[in-house]
Order: sequence, then C-alpha cells, then structure tokens
Amino acid sequence: MSLTDFLFGKPLATLDERAERIGTAEGIPIFGLDALSSAAYGPEAALTLLLPLGALGVGYIVPVSASIIVLLTIVYFSYRQTLGAYQSGGGSYTVARENLGTSAGLLAAAALMIDYVLNVAVGISAGVGALVSAAPSLERYTLWLCLAILVIITNVNLRGVRDTGAVFLLPTYLFVGTLVLTIVIGCAKTVLAGGHPLPVIAPPAAPKALELVSAWLLMKVFASGCTAMTGVEAVSNGVKAFREPAAVHARRALTAIIALLIILLAGIAYLVRAYDISATAPGVAGYQSVLSMLVAAVTGKGIFYYVTMGSILLVLALSANTSFADFPRLCRVIAQDNFLPRSFAVRGRRLVYSWGIYTLFFLSAGLLIIFGGVTDRLIPLFAVGAFLAFTLSQAGMVEHWRRLKGPGARHSMAINGLGAIATGITVVVVLVAKFVDGAWITVVLIPAMIFVMIAVRRQYHHMSMQIASQSPLDLTRFSPPIVVVPIDRWSKIPQRALTFALTISPDVIAVHVAAGDRTVYLQNEWHDYVEVPVGELGMCPPKLVVLSSPYRFVIIPLVDYVLDLARRRPDRQIAVLIPEVVENRWYYHPLHNQRATALKAMLYFRGNPQIVVINMPWYVQP
Amino acid sequence: MSLTDFLFGKPLATLDERAERIGTAEGIPIFGLDALSSAAYGPEAALTLLLPLGALGVGYIVPVSASIIVLLTIVYFSYRQTLGAYQSGGGSYTVARENLGTSAGLLAAAALMIDYVLNVAVGISAGVGALVSAAPSLERYTLWLCLAILVIITNVNLRGVRDTGAVFLLPTYLFVGTLVLTIVIGCAKTVLAGGHPLPVIAPPAAPKALELVSAWLLMKVFASGCTAMTGVEAVSNGVKAFREPAAVHARRALTAIIALLIILLAGIAYLVRAYDISATAPGVAGYQSVLSMLVAAVTGKGIFYYVTMGSILLVLALSANTSFADFPRLCRVIAQDNFLPRSFAVRGRRLVYSWGIYTLFFLSAGLLIIFGGVTDRLIPLFAVGAFLAFTLSQAGMVEHWRRLKGPGARHSMAINGLGAIATGITVVVVLVAKFVDGAWITVVLIPAMIFVMIAVRRQYHHMSMQIASQSPLDLTRFSPPIVVVPIDRWSKIPQRALTFALTISPDVIAVHVAAGDRTVYLQNEWHDYVEVPVGELGMCPPKLVVLSSPYRFVIIPLVDYVLDLARRRPDRQIAVLIPEVVENRWYYHPLHNQRATALKAMLYFRGNPQIVVINMPWYVQP
Repeated sequence: MSLTDFLFGKPLATLDERAERIGTAEGIPIFGLDALSSAAYGPEAALTLLLPLGALGVGYIVPVSASIIVLLTIVYFSYRQTLGAYQSGGGSYTVARENLGTSAGLLAAAALMIDYVLNVAVGISAGVGALVSAAPSLERYTLWLCLAILVIITNVNLRGVRDTGAVFLLPTYLFVGTLVLTIVIGCAKTVLAGGHPLPVIAPPAAPKALELVSAWLLMKVFASGCTAMTGVEAVSNGVKAFREPAAVHARRALTAIIALLIILLAGIAYLVRAYDISATAPGVAGYQSVLSMLVAAVTGKGIFYYVTMGSILLVLALSANTSFADFPRLCRVIAQDNFLPRSFAVRGRRLVYSWGIYTLFFLSAGLLIIFGGVTDRLIPLFAVGAFLAFTLSQAGMVEHWRRLKGPGARHSMAINGLGAIATGITVVVVLVAKFVDGAWITVVLIPAMIFVMIAVRRQYHHMSMQIASQSPLDLTRFSPPIVVVPIDRWSKIPQRALTFALTISPDVIAVHVAAGDRTVYLQNEWHDYVEVPVGELGMCPPKLVVLSSPYRFVIIPLVDYVLDLARRRPDRQIAVLIPEVVENRWYYHPLHNQRATALKAMLYFRGNPQIVVINMPWYVQP
Repeated sequence: MSLTDFLFGKPLATLDERAERIGTAEGIPIFGLDALSSAAYGPEAALTLLLPLGALGVGYIVPVSASIIVLLTIVYFSYRQTLGAYQSGGGSYTVARENLGTSAGLLAAAALMIDYVLNVAVGISAGVGALVSAAPSLERYTLWLCLAILVIITNVNLRGVRDTGAVFLLPTYLFVGTLVLTIVIGCAKTVLAGGHPLPVIAPPAAPKALELVSAWLLMKVFASGCTAMTGVEAVSNGVKAFREPAAVHARRALTAIIALLIILLAGIAYLVRAYDISATAPGVAGYQSVLSMLVAAVTGKGIFYYVTMGSILLVLALSANTSFADFPRLCRVIAQDNFLPRSFAVRGRRLVYSWGIYTLFFLSAGLLIIFGGVTDRLIPLFAVGAFLAFTLSQAGMVEHWRRLKGPGARHSMAINGLGAIATGITVVVVLVAKFVDGAWITVVLIPAMIFVMIAVRRQYHHMSMQIASQSPLDLTRFSPPIVVVPIDRWSKIPQRALTFALTISPDVIAVHVAAGDRTVYLQNEWHDYVEVPVGELGMCPPKLVVLSSPYRFVIIPLVDYVLDLARRRPDRQIAVLIPEVVENRWYYHPLHNQRATALKAMLYFRGNPQIVVINMPWYVQP
C-alpha cells in the first residue's frame, strides 16, 4: 500500500460508481447534517441579538422561532416538488438556468457557492464553540482548532462519498438522539413544574437591559435566526447520489430532515424561554453556547452533558461536510457549461471532484482566518446566499409548471409560487437587516463572481473558435526545424543534445554566451569534437555562434538571438533544445536548472508560434 | 522607463563596475553601520540583564563596558593586519580556509552567515524599539513595522551598492553626530553638577532588587553586552568594494568606525550611571529604550530628542544593510568554491548577487516573525557566530604570519595571536552564559549548515565527474526519434503538432485516451484528415493508438505507454510532443494546461534518458 493510497484511499474505477450510491438512512447524515446542525447556531444567533433587551429578550425567541418554522414548512413543500421534477439533480443553478435563463442560473450559482463556503466556516467555528463551552481553557486556541478540523474533513472528502457517509452516520444520529432526549426531559420537567422548572445548573444571569424592543431589532433577530434554515436545499442538489429509485429515497430523506429540524427548533425555543437562558458574549473568555447552557440546565453536567456536547461538536464540525459533498458537484455542473475552468469537471483518484474540494478548503480556511473562527462574526454574511438560491429555485419551478401545463401543474405552481414569494421576502428582510453588519460583502461578491464566470465562458468560446478545424493536415510547407542548442562548456550534456539535434534536422546552430577563457577553450573543442566528426560523415557541421553580453545576462541574449532568427527565417520552425539536469533526490534540485527554467519561461513569454522548446533531461546517477 | 527599471534600477554593465567602488567617507556608513549601531542595543542588552539587581545594577555597566572596549581594541589591531594581508577581501571564511583548512573555513562561513541573518533581525527590531519608545502607541504594531522596514531595505539593496551608500550616508552621520553631542552635553552637565546631574526628564525608577550580584550574572551581562561588537569584521569582507588603494581606504574606514564605537560605548556607560538609568521590561507596553531615556534625561523631549531618535531608528534599521552588503558577497565566495548552489555566484541586473539578497530577506523575515520583532528575545542567539568568526579569522592570520616568516611577521603574529586568544575566550564565555537562553540554537545550526555545504560540494563534484567529456560527438547510432503526440480531439492544435512531428521524424505515433463518443469521432477524422493526405505524399502515415483508462486518468496511461515504448525500442529516442496553450493574459492561465503540466512533470519524474519532451506553444490570439 503506497503512502498516497493510505492517505487518500485506493483509486476507484468508473464502474465502481454505482456501488457508491446511497440510501435514505445514509442520505440523512450526508445531505442533512448542514440543515440539522443549523439548529445549534440559528437560535443562538437570534438570542445573541436579543442580549440588549436583558432578561425580557428571551421571551421573543418563541414568536421568532415560530415564524421561521412556518417559512421552513413552506420551503419543504416547495423542494419536495423539485425532487420529483429534477431527478438528475435539481440544484438551484440547474432549475434557475433551465427555466429563467442563464443570468438567473449564474446568480443562483454565485449565491450557492458563497453559502457553501460560509457553511463550512460557520459549521466548524460553531463546533469549536461547543467544544470551548465544555472546556473553557481551550478558548484561546479557537482558530487553530477550527483549522485542524477543516484539514481532517477535507481529507475525509478527498477519499470519496461512500467513506464519508460511514464516518458521519453515528455522530448525526447521536446528535439528534441526545438533543431530542434533552427536549423531552426538559418539556416533561417544565410541565411537571407548572411552566417554571428549576435548572440543575443555573445559566448565567441575563445582562442588564440597554434597549427597548423595536421592530428593527426583531427584524434583525429574525434575519439571524434564518441561518437555522441554511442547508435544506442540499438534498435537491444531490439526488443523483441516491440509489434508485432516487427521487423516492431523496424525498424520504428530505422529509426526515425537515421534520427533525422543526422538532429541534421548536423544542429549543420552548425550553430556552422556560429556563430563561440568555446568550453569552461571543469571541471572548467566558463564552458558553446556548445549547451547552440548555443541556446543563436540563440534565446537569454529567456524562450525558459531555456526550451531547461531543456529538454537537462532531456534527457541527462535520456539517461542513454537506458543503464538501455539494460544492464540488455544483462546480462540476457549472464547469460543464464552461463557466468555470474545466479542471472542476475532472474526477480524481477517488471519484470525487478534487479541484472543487481544494477550492472549498482554501476559501473556507481564508474565512476562518479572517474572522478568527468566531461564529458570531460570520453569521451576518450567511443566509443571504441561501435564501437567494431558494427564491430563484422556487421561481424557476413556477416557470417549469407553467410550461408543463399537465394535470396538477396548477396546484404545483401554487405551492412553488408561495415558496418563491415567502423566500423572496425573506431575502429582502435579511439583506436590509444585516446589510451594514456584513451582508454587503455578499452583495459585492455575487456580481464579481458572475463577471468571472461569464469571462471564463467567453474565453473558452473564443479559444474553441480559434482552434476549431475541419481540415486535413497541411503538408505543403514541409521542412525540418532549425535547431538552436545553447552551450556553456563542452561536456556530455551538450554532446548528447547535439547528437539528438542532428537526428531531427540538418540545420543545427549552437549558441554560446561569451565568458572569457571558457569561450576560447570551447571554440577549440568545437573544431575537434564537432566539426571534424560531422564533416567526416559528409554532413554540414553545426555552426557555433558566440554572443557577447555586456550585462552578464545569459538568458536575454539567447532569447534575443532566437527571436531574431525567427524573424529572419519566417518560413522555418525554430526548435530550442534545452538540456535539464534531473536529480534523483528532490533536495538537490536547487543546485541546477535555474537558467533552464528562466530560459523556457522567457521563450514562452516573448515567443511566437514559430518557436518550439525541446527539453532534454540529463539524469544524474546516484 | 519600464516598471522593472523603476523598481530595481536600470541594469548595469560589467564595465560600470569600477565606478561603483567607494571611498573612506562612503565606506564608514556602508560597512560601519552595523558596528556603530550595535552601540544602541549592546549596552541595553547588558542593562536588561542587570534589572534583577534593582537600583544597584546600573553601577556594573561601567566595568562591563570597559572590558568590552578593551576586547574591541584588541580585535581592531588584529583586523587592521588582515586588511593589509588580504586585499582582495579577507573575510573570516577566506582567511580561515586558506590558512587552517576547509573545515575551519566552513565553520567560519556558517558562523558568519548565522550572524548576518541575526544582525538584520536585531538591527530592525531594535530600530523599531527606538520608534515605539518615541511613539508608545505604535507598540502593538511592532512586528508589522519590522517587516515593512525589511522590505524597504531589501529593495534598496536589490538596486545595487552605489545607491545604497548614498541612502545611508546622512542617517549614519546624523546618528553619530547627535549621540556624540548628547554625550558631550551630558558629560559637561555631570562635571558641572559634581557627578550627580539633574535629569531634564527623569527616567522611570529602577525596579526592586530581586537578586544579589553574582559572577554568573556578570558573565551573562558581559556576554549580552558583547553584541555591541558585532559587525566590526564587515570592512575586512568588503575590501574589494573600496576605491584603489583599497587597503588604505579600508584601513582608514575601520579606524574611524572603531574609534567612534569606543566613544559611544564609553559615553553611554558613563552617562547611564551618572543619570541612574535602568532598562525597562522588553516586549510589553511601557517599554522604552535606554537611549531614549538617556537623551530625554540629558536634553529633554524637544526637537533634538526626536531628531536623535529618528536617526537611531534609521541607523538601527539600516544597520541591517551591512548584512545585505556582505551576506551575498560571502555566499558568492562560498558558491564559487561549490559549497553553495551556483546561483549565489551569479550577478543580477544591478551588479548585486540577487540570490543572496533574497535568501537573507526570507531568513530574517522568518526570525522576526518567530520572535515577534522583540530585540531582547533575539539577543541570546546573537554574538556566538560573530565571535567564532573573529577567533577563526585571527587564528588563521597567526598561521598566515607563521608561514610568511617575513620581517615583522613575528610582531604581527603576536598581535593576531592575542586577538585569537581574547576572542576565543569570549566565544566560550558567551556560549556558556547564553546557552540555555538561545545560544544552543546556534550550536545546532552550525554543524547542520556545514553538513549541507559539504553535501552541495560533493553533489557538484559527483555531477561534474559524470558529465566530463573529452570525446567527440558519437554519430554511430544515428536515427531520428519516435515522436509520440497525445491527442484528445481533432483541432488546429494536434494538426500543428502532427505536422511538426512529421518534419522531424518519419516515426510518429498519436496516442488517445479512450473517452466514449469522442474516440469514435476521432477515429473517423483520423482517416480523412491524416491517413489520406500523408499517404498521398507517399509517406507512411502516423498510427493512432487508443488507450483504455478504467480510472478516468489521462496522464498515467500516457506515461505508461511512453515508458513501455521506450522499453520495447531501447535503440531509439522517444520524443513526447506536448502542445501547450499560452494565454496572452496571466489571469486566463488557470483555464488550460493542467494536464500538460502534470504530464511533463510525470515524464520527468518517472522518465529516463531515452525520453525527450517537446513543448509546442499555441498562442491564443486576443
């Protein structure tokens, strides 16, 4: 087993692909982690904004959560229909592009890409938030913990989708199980205590009230709470990953995911109010997550607390995995339409789209570093993209049904229309409420990304027009190239290069940059070692051209000579033969080839189609 | 004027070199900055270690400085002799290598290289220390200020030595002028006040005494204070940079530098005691440099204070420049002996050794980042290298005079012998006193560097043995290569590649990795576009080989095919013709060539001398 195999898994053949597909039970963790884990930061994001209201603030979490659940239900019914209509994977990009045109598709694509990256950053930072709640002494290592988790997830994903499912199954069910249990116990205690249960461990007291409640504040609370809904579109992007019948499996997975999410959101809101739990200030020592306080209040800090916090950490960190499953797939679809570099559509060793995974890794690592791994600073950027994608997807479905005109199309159209309106209003609310705090970044990024995607496609098109050919080989102007061989001093390296040059063309020119005595030696050796033996074979011996170089440059005179030669002989190809020393050990590489590399780069940079570069490796024997 | 010219200066011809040489007045700032500026951190390093003694500690600075001045005088007379004996540049490396053998030379080289790097880091960090003394609010930007200054100095040096001298002339003389004036005024006030002058601005009170004085503590104080002597060897490395008669100019510059340094050290020690100035804790808010407190005590915080602090900042930061003048020269000498990659001996556009400058930049930036730009943390690593180099240089000179046996050789030998013994003892003292605090790093690094240098030389030797040739071209086995052309689909790119291939060899094989329908199209086109026209010319048409690839890899099957072909045809060269798309704009580069680059890399990595790579650029028209 090679090191690469150990790190990234054995390569998988294309025929293995079918076996890599998943069922409902595996689909829930893979495509639902993001949606479910949002329950761990959505309510908290809302509660953090309620802090200025002091003890009274907690009460507002119930109506806010209720409105989010209503919105979630609408979105669920909308997406159910998408799954049936787009069985080969109906991400917002596909649906919007097919029904509303390219611009809408690119808008959805940009929105989704931003949100996938943010989801990785928010998921991991919130997971680390859970960890430092349970172990406060780790607070100052927040960023390093985030980056370490990101590296692990990236590696797991480079290994491929099957392995991924297996790794995430247990933590997801543990997370849902412990939280639901906490909610059940908490509700039972609340009911038994007549609505005011005694916490096992009391949460920190709410801070003093600094503001009175206002519509603007509640709007911001709602906008932040909406982050709890991110990730519900994941199933619709990934229908293709399900086993046949894919639509059925996908629909079951979606239903389970949304139902569980509603239970979690409702339960958390109810208990937070019952136990009077306010958020704590984020990003500073003393921070504790809302779920940590909640579980401690309901069950105390026993084994159950640590198991729950452990599963929250795992699931939140791994929720990033939804993005790692979907971001590369989205990039592939976009790249197949030539809006992104084609490398995004090439599958690597393990049937995954490696370029997408690398890109996601670097972008989310950048976000984590810029925002120091603090969830609360990332939240304002989040959700705009998700709701924009929701809206475009639903609007696209409305158009889809309008065209289809089948039985039931009217009914379906109404459902998707309601979804489009509800999510469209939410986009505006979120954008306005969080614009100053960070949503403006999304507003700037989305057009920039659309611009890049259009430019990529135009350049590919431009290129393919240029190279398109429906004509046979043109062998009318058919003469061997003039071969130019740079030579510094006589050794086996130019000896081999010259021999090769003479086999491919009778026109060989050796070029030497003058360097004092060395030049004189070389000129003598040239006569004995080249002119005599080649002459004896009756061939025309190669010329030795000596170039002067007042600036001690070696590269520039050579390149100038080649360019000048190309100008003087427009009818001929010029082949520059560059010997390169290849060391058998990488750490010897810096000893050689700086000049060869520079010469090649400059020939490419200043060159033209007449000029071809031949690399001749010289392998150093150990 | 091009951008490169603006940033780095116009290229200089070799003939311009003479004009680039300098006189005594310019030699003092260029080679003396390091030595002179040491006065700004040497006494402070000693005083910081005296802090635990409380108010009593300051008194010990006078005897410690006196012993350092005695040592400095001995070293001065030693180096005076080196300048006369080694007119073409007698750095410790050259002197030790010629007289004591290669091992001693490499030891000196490693020691010097380490000290040059440390000198850059210490000079810049101490300069920034002066800045934050005058403007305490900048304290938290210490590291960023350090790095910004490093970038500026690096750029100035890439422009060449003449410009460098002009930039540093004024600050050096301003530094020496203001400090000497401060000392004169301070001494006058002290004498007039009967030994106890009243400070204009009182320095912070000394901390409480925590320890009693001990021999061990004084030894550490002496060892830290010795950093004031670093840099005095600079002139001996740079004799060649002086105008003729170089030895005379160099000797005058050395005398002036040492005399000024002694005045500064003696004056600072005397006034620090007279005004009772203790150091402040380094690396935390409230830090103030000793010179800042001294100048404020003597003259108050008026214009003169800020001019003085400004010149200290400039000179300390620029003292790094001594290293930038000497480190690349040292690397060149070592590289000419094949102990470092040859690139270090190649002069760039502006007659400077660019590789040495880049290396110094990266190493000192690394040190600054690791130690947060705090001088006090760098001091323990410093001085070991300098004194080791002093010792080897003096010992080498002793051997030099022993061999020479001329008149006066005995006398000269005695002077260098005294120098060798004094500095040798100092090395041991510094090493023991600062071992735990950081000197051990030097002890680990020096053998590692010597190992690397020996390995580099061995590898160059090994290589030159392999390629040495005193034989003519061997044209007995003389047949054109088999040309392999990878092809994906028919377009102008493979069309041009195949045409070129046919001009250099009759044996052309096109290789295609199977990809569904595309393969079928290609096979049809191959017949019409290649086989027919080539056949019509009466030539043997190129074969189209289709490779299957169950893992969707493209690169690996191609490389395997080429390697297999090379095995089957051991008598032939195999030329792999790889078309590459060259975009006219750099930002389009990611769109193409990932496969071409990977293919070339793998052919090199797994290839053998039979295999040659031909790069054929395809320029995209704008």
